[in-house]
Amino acid sequence: MGFTTDLTTRVLATGPLCAGVDPSRSLLEEWGLSDDATGLREFCGRCLEGFAGVVPVVKPQVAFFERHGSAGVAVLEGFLGEARDAGLLVVADAKRADIANTVDAYADAWLGPTSPLRADAVTAVPYLGLGSLEPLVLAAARSGSAVIVVIRSSNPEGRMIQEARLAAGGTVPGEGRSVEDTLLAQIAARNAAFLAEHPDWSLGPIGAVIGATLDPSGFPLGDLGGPILAPGVGAQGAGPEELRRLFGGCPPGAVLPNVSRSVLAAGPDPGALRRAAKAALEEAAEALG
Amino acid sequence: MGFTTDLTTRVLATGPLCAGVDPSRSLLEEWGLSDDATGLREFCGRCLEGFAGVVPVVKPQVAFFERHGSAGVAVLEGFLGEARDAGLLVVADAKRADIANTVDAYADAWLGPTSPLRADAVTAVPYLGLGSLEPLVLAAARSGSAVIVVIRSSNPEGRMIQEARLAAGGTVPGEGRSVEDTLLAQIAARNAAFLAEHPDWSLGPIGAVIGATLDPSGFPLGDLGGPILAPGVGAQGAGPEELRRLFGGCPPGAVLPNVSRSVLAAGPDPGALRRAAKAALEEAAEALG
Repeated sequence: MGFTTDLTTRVLATGPLCAGVDPSRSLLEEWGLSDDATGLREFCGRCLEGFAGVVPVVKPQVAFFERHGSAGVAVLEGFLGEARDAGLLVVADAKRADIANTVDAYADAWLGPTSPLRADAVTAVPYLGLGSLEPLVLAAARSGSAVIVVIRSSNPEGRMIQEARLAAGGTVPGEGRSVEDTLLAQIAARNAAFLAEHPDWSLGPIGAVIGATLDPSGFPLGDLGGPILAPGVGAQGAGPEELRRLFGGCPPGAVLPNVSRSVLAAGPDPGALRRAAKAALEEAAEALG
Repeated sequence: MGFTTDLTTRVLATGPLCAGVDPSRSLLEEWGLSDDATGLREFCGRCLEGFAGVVPVVKPQVAFFERHGSAGVAVLEGFLGEARDAGLLVVADAKRADIANTVDAYADAWLGPTSPLRADAVTAVPYLGLGSLEPLVLAAARSGSAVIVVIRSSNPEGRMIQEARLAAGGTVPGEGRSVEDTLLAQIAARNAAFLAEHPDWSLGPIGAVIGATLDPSGFPLGDLGGPILAPGVGAQGAGPEELRRLFGGCPPGAVLPNVSRSVLAAGPDPGALRRAAKAALEEAAEALG
């Protein structure tokens, strides 16, 4: 049916891993591919061949398609369909943010049942408030997909805002609580309300991006009630120990470590990509038990 | 040459206004157009006819094009070229956010000199830190364009994060200062350093989105050194008095009130759009003196 409804089952069957599909300029060059829509298409085909049947989820980074304009977006449309046909769940890493009917439009684009860009989940950014993303949440709830909100990014520049403290007398109670913990609590409350009305869903429609290289924050991630995408694994520095420390309390099947660079560095041979993805998946499975 | 280099001259010649180009589902319907790429194209054509020669800047909302997948993005490409040919500066309202080489890719997409989606400015979101947007800043500085960062959004849900206070012992000094004022100070410092090395530019490459419906925050906007885009004017509630109160201290030509709904409601007749845009522009010009 979709991301949140299928994720737990699939992860329990295959192990937890999200494989990034990042056709950056430098990776296209490393793989000997042209820096255009043809190169993109070839890159995606090799990733599909390498990842299908191995990992449960793939995550194309939308910026690397957008770089090529409408021709690149057309390649992404093709990839989304082929990945689905190959039995993969797809997170479109778009990190969209806006308000009101603009977020409605992003919901139509990424989670609409007839959209050419339809994915199983899309990432979003909460700078305009978690409430601003509600049209994406409603679309996800309707279609069994998910909106995965960036809460704790693994880059140092993100800490200033994410660790800032709620002001006194603000629109949300909780003076002194950190922005990231407040957002996590808001997500947990929204998921809990949803799950109370949909007891057949194992996870609610709102997930969180939690960088795996950080120390745990105050909010107990086991209470989130939604999927967790954890970048920063592999080339970016987080290993099994960090995964256990951060996500040990989360329910089985809810956490998806994301590996991009360290797996894609094994390409362009699909067999080599497959072996690298398998190794990363086994490491993640062992860490998350 | 581009946004920051041309904006002041153009605004002083024509008056300050950015006209939104928002082909939402509901506006396509109101205008009697089909909800597909053909309807989008017609919508854009009417906006161009209505706005060219009247306002200095137009702002297509990217989500309304993305809603139609690659076919919609192709219409946006066409619009960007035609708007430039008609002498309009274009802000691509994309509100992109990410880190590292992903932001490089967004910079290639929206500010790259040969990109099919090249605009004069692009909007971005700072949840991952202002530093995460540096590749967009560098691209803007190279091409005389701008990255306009959402700092104070006009929706109530945004206040929680934007008004939060810097934590003690964080990565950025200034415990207790608000997120929005800290970001504005960071932008001002970055623009000042740039302008010291480029005395021929009237504004630096980093702008800010400042909702016109809010009370002024602590940072003096006259010191920003970059363009200010001010949504919330017209249908959303801010009038001449709010514009004066918020932006009275800003240098001439630096502030662009953005009107979307109240002008687009006059369509689909290009003559009516033109009259509505003229009226909004005159009101803004009077307010900003």
